Amino acid sequence: MIKVVILGAGNVAFHLTNFLLKNKKVALLQVYNKNINKIDYLKNAVSVTDKISNLNKTGDIYIIAVSDDAISSLSNQLMLPNKLVVHTSGNVSINELQSKSGKGVFYPLQSFSKNKNINFKNIPFCIEADTSKNLFLLKTFTKIISDTYFLINSEQRKQLHLAAVFVNNFVNHLYYLGNEICEENNIPFEILNPLIKETANKIEELSPFNAQTGPAKRNDKETMKKQLAMLPKKSKEIYTLLSNSILETYGKKL
Amino acid sequence: MIKVVILGAGNVAFHLTNFLLKNKKVALLQVYNKNINKIDYLKNAVSVTDKISNLNKTGDIYIIAVSDDAISSLSNQLMLPNKLVVHTSGNVSINELQSKSGKGVFYPLQSFSKNKNINFKNIPFCIEADTSKNLFLLKTFTKIISDTYFLINSEQRKQLHLAAVFVNNFVNHLYYLGNEICEENNIPFEILNPLIKETANKIEELSPFNAQTGPAKRNDKETMKKQLAMLPKKSKEIYTLLSNSILETYGKKL
Repeated sequence: MIKVVILGAGNVAFHLTNFLLKNKKVALLQVYNKNINKIDYLKNAVSVTDKISNLNKTGDIYIIAVSDDAISSLSNQLMLPNKLVVHTSGNVSINELQSKSGKGVFYPLQSFSKNKNINFKNIPFCIEADTSKNLFLLKTFTKIISDTYFLINSEQRKQLHLAAVFVNNFVNHLYYLGNEICEENNIPFEILNPLIKETANKIEELSPFNAQTGPAKRNDKETMKKQLAMLPKKSKEIYTLLSNSILETYGKKL
Repeated sequence: MIKVVILGAGNVAFHLTNFLLKNKKVALLQVYNKNINKIDYLKNAVSVTDKISNLNKTGDIYIIAVSDDAISSLSNQLMLPNKLVVHTSGNVSINELQSKSGKGVFYPLQSFSKNKNINFKNIPFCIEADTSKNLFLLKTFTKIISDTYFLINSEQRKQLHLAAVFVNNFVNHLYYLGNEICEENNIPFEILNPLIKETANKIEELSPFNAQTGPAKRNDKETMKKQLAMLPKKSKEIYTLLSNSILETYGKKL
């Protein structure tokens, strides 16, 4: 059985910890976090510690799931020869791991919120390791967790993470701006749910280029002018820039 | 049985025509379009015409599904006293209908592409009519088509359509920009599909405000700087503006 130690208590660490605690094919040995209060709730289920010196040394894989800028310094404290240390970041190269150990990356391409359940089986994992032996171990572990994984190198992963910022973080912010318009006009935001889902589902069948609709795609200047006039300053700028970008994409000009 | 005439051959008219042809509770009497070539393929299934003078006068509901700026002039040619003329636009007031007839709006809040099937049952319709009698007829018709409808006045509908531009048109363009990044780096765009769907599904449980994640939400300046440097000019501007807007939303500054 693969033995795992998790380092961190953020969204990814939280969901991974809870998933592994329930998984019978993996032994979660320990959870480390520098602030013990954040993992205190786990103490009846698994060993917890806030001291690197107390780290359980018998694990196979040590998963660093902390903020990007803490990965290097945390890994630098790890002296784990013959063990595999991986981080879970989309944006950090495998080479930023400073541990005396095998190295790898185990990046779940999904957005995690603490109060929203996640089914790991459906998450694509992007994995990478320093040696074929370590890659084999990481693959074996990943297959227990999820139905899909991709071998993605650090450069590709950085680009993928950037693409994810557009299709996830920025998309969610557009939902927020749409919600704002609804709230100001006493319209239930739920009316938009089927449209939001269809927009997401559509691109399984059509490329985003072919799926595009709307006033900018049609170069419908009258509608764009009217809609711009309805918006507050911040949203006006976003409306203009995105409409221009759509117009450009289809070879037109505002 | 409710008798219907459709005017137009765009995406909404196309899907509505094909849906009504298969529906046994509605009689589709005729389809009009000023360019007959676009509706020629229907001629074995239903009466088609390109002349207003040939319009079947025995319908109950006349559905104008043409581009926004053609609604007023097309409706102006309709002399249909005691009939109900509705348009399907999110962005045009009921008062822009110039027909001598009852008036209403029948706006399907969904994005239509010709080569993507649509299940009308799941589309929320925003309806409005000039009299309670006409509203009753429109409600009865809408219930045959869909499981959900909302009484939305012209001002709200305009705002709703604007919100839809954000959560559909602009969101799809962000998918396009994400796809561009993937293509340039030989990454299959499909890896992002589960993330895209989860982003859309998440807001059924969480408000977009609470669902936000990512570098801008975390005010992670280092990541934002690195990601900006990776982008071409057009995407750089969009990245900056949307990141700033997220930062502002959470009370931070770039």
